[in-house]
Amino acid sequence: MIVEGQQVQSIWYDRDLDSVKIIDQNLLPHEFKIISLEKLSDACRAIKLMQVRGAPLIGVTAAYGVYLALKENPRQQQVAIKKLLDTRPTAVNLKWALDKMEESLKGVEEGLVAAKALEFSCLLEKEDIQVCEGIGESGLSVVQALWNEKKDYQDCINILTHCNAGALASVDWGTALSVIYKASAAGMPIHVWVDETRPRNQGAALTCWELSQHGIPNTLIVDNAGGHLMQIGQVDACVVGSDRTTLHGDVCNKIGTYLKALAARANNIPFYAALPVSTIDFSMTAGIGNIPVEERSVEEVSYVYGVDQTGNRNKVRITDERTRIKNYGFDITPAELITAIITEKGVFEANEASLRRLVD
Amino acid sequence: MIVEGQQVQSIWYDRDLDSVKIIDQNLLPHEFKIISLEKLSDACRAIKLMQVRGAPLIGVTAAYGVYLALKENPRQQQVAIKKLLDTRPTAVNLKWALDKMEESLKGVEEGLVAAKALEFSCLLEKEDIQVCEGIGESGLSVVQALWNEKKDYQDCINILTHCNAGALASVDWGTALSVIYKASAAGMPIHVWVDETRPRNQGAALTCWELSQHGIPNTLIVDNAGGHLMQIGQVDACVVGSDRTTLHGDVCNKIGTYLKALAARANNIPFYAALPVSTIDFSMTAGIGNIPVEERSVEEVSYVYGVDQTGNRNKVRITDERTRIKNYGFDITPAELITAIITEKGVFEANEASLRRLVD
Repeated sequence: MIVEGQQVQSIWYDRDLDSVKIIDQNLLPHEFKIISLEKLSDACRAIKLMQVRGAPLIGVTAAYGVYLALKENPRQQQVAIKKLLDTRPTAVNLKWALDKMEESLKGVEEGLVAAKALEFSCLLEKEDIQVCEGIGESGLSVVQALWNEKKDYQDCINILTHCNAGALASVDWGTALSVIYKASAAGMPIHVWVDETRPRNQGAALTCWELSQHGIPNTLIVDNAGGHLMQIGQVDACVVGSDRTTLHGDVCNKIGTYLKALAARANNIPFYAALPVSTIDFSMTAGIGNIPVEERSVEEVSYVYGVDQTGNRNKVRITDERTRIKNYGFDITPAELITAIITEKGVFEANEASLRRLVD
Repeated sequence: MIVEGQQVQSIWYDRDLDSVKIIDQNLLPHEFKIISLEKLSDACRAIKLMQVRGAPLIGVTAAYGVYLALKENPRQQQVAIKKLLDTRPTAVNLKWALDKMEESLKGVEEGLVAAKALEFSCLLEKEDIQVCEGIGESGLSVVQALWNEKKDYQDCINILTHCNAGALASVDWGTALSVIYKASAAGMPIHVWVDETRPRNQGAALTCWELSQHGIPNTLIVDNAGGHLMQIGQVDACVVGSDRTTLHGDVCNKIGTYLKALAARANNIPFYAALPVSTIDFSMTAGIGNIPVEERSVEEVSYVYGVDQTGNRNKVRITDERTRIKNYGFDITPAELITAIITEKGVFEANEASLRRLVD
């Protein structure tokens, strides 16, 4: 991705300094700061405090965490994996990356495990970039078709997105935003409506910043506003990411996605989910009732972070201390509301017959 | 309404002190403070800074503002009305109340105008209380029917509401919350899901506080969460207010209402709008495209208010300063998504044939 005109990734290995670099996403959009992960504890802290977030990025960070641990002490593989898993117990991709890492280290002798862990982490990093770029390329035809339909009477395509499914959620490119970057690079004029995405405000803090860094016009709206915008003809398509997708095509994504999919359907607007094939759970058919929906800390709702009048990062409590709060992290958008699923292996209908082609 | 065990209104005239008292709603839920309006400028400031908000309450405050002005100088009626109208130029109810006030002062001699303005303000205050209490009484049968259906297998009725359509939005009782207060007083166990209601967080700041003061169980959720709750069977009905309703039954209410109505329909959950007959615009048929939707200050989105770690009221900016923002205040829920309209004159279907009975 581009930040202040320079090419950068959400995470990378600096061979000269033998350290792992990340963007501290907690400071965005107010400050762009790259920090070094030198030890296992740095990697754990980065995931726990959400300096890195987004399924693919957490996985790659955890892999590098194992490398940093083994560099210190080649015998602490099991301890390191346990500590990393504990940082965000419900993150599916974290476990997936650590399982793959464990597999790759099987039978490797003690003197070589750190080097092998580094090699595997770098590979995971590269693969993630390729997959995400591939999602963008697959989505190009979808946006081109939209533009062909609109260009005679509109000066741009208006795409609504929810949360941050961008380069900041992966190593680079992202999923939903990869589609937008590729279409924009191919010359299609795009304007993005960015849902604020309460309670953590990833849209306001990350997506607007990331899109603006790429020069892509964008406008922040509260999560409540999308339905009205669709009613008045200001949205041509919705593109969102997905944390987990079932064989039937049900999409589990950041809470609020479902409401936008309902509004899109009511207003005849196409609704796309852009995701890596690795997040499709081919063993699960229906999403509702089967995908467990994580309940997160109530402080995510009661406290809001930003910068205060002195320019310092600060938080305010918006609720009474006694207010009871429920904070569900995700919701499930049923397949029938999804126009198509965009993956690195092509565009698929959101149904079993279509998605089975990915495994058969 | 009850606050800290005492009976109180959002606004009232204190005859002993000859001053108008209001609750400063900007300080809620962190501080409950009653302030005095002594002069026209106090009333203007209270409306402008949103120490009072909600259509009925603004109207009554403006009426008292005219009285305070005429008490100072019986010749400044026109100036006072203009100043009050300028505080919130788009508030329909403000103009309605001031027009009625002007009407009542026509031909009254100078020595008596202040007394007449006070008399009219007190009347408006009393009428608002009666109308709102009547809405609650009309809604009783609706909630009773829900409860009859649920009580064999549920321990309470779960009602979702959006924004604050409570006692704090009127002189007392409210509209949507009046229904809940009356049903609760009649012995029906109710739990309320309260939408946070970005960008101004009236749900988080006002509705949770108001319901808790009345001992009614409530849980705050982000605006994104309602769809998920409906999918998992946690919502039995939605009850919201309305700023303006058309003859066809389209309901213009706080932005985000439409998304909840779509989710309710998709999940076979009844969706009610509770409103005074005075907010039905019998001259307007279809809402979409006809009701102008106010765009409000972008600072409502970029700045969030609360208390900081020192316990003081503070604000933080959640966005980059360069972020482009659009802030629509309302949306329009089409009549076909509305199960019924609850008014002080009874419960009506959301269609012309039914609503015409109110005028014919």
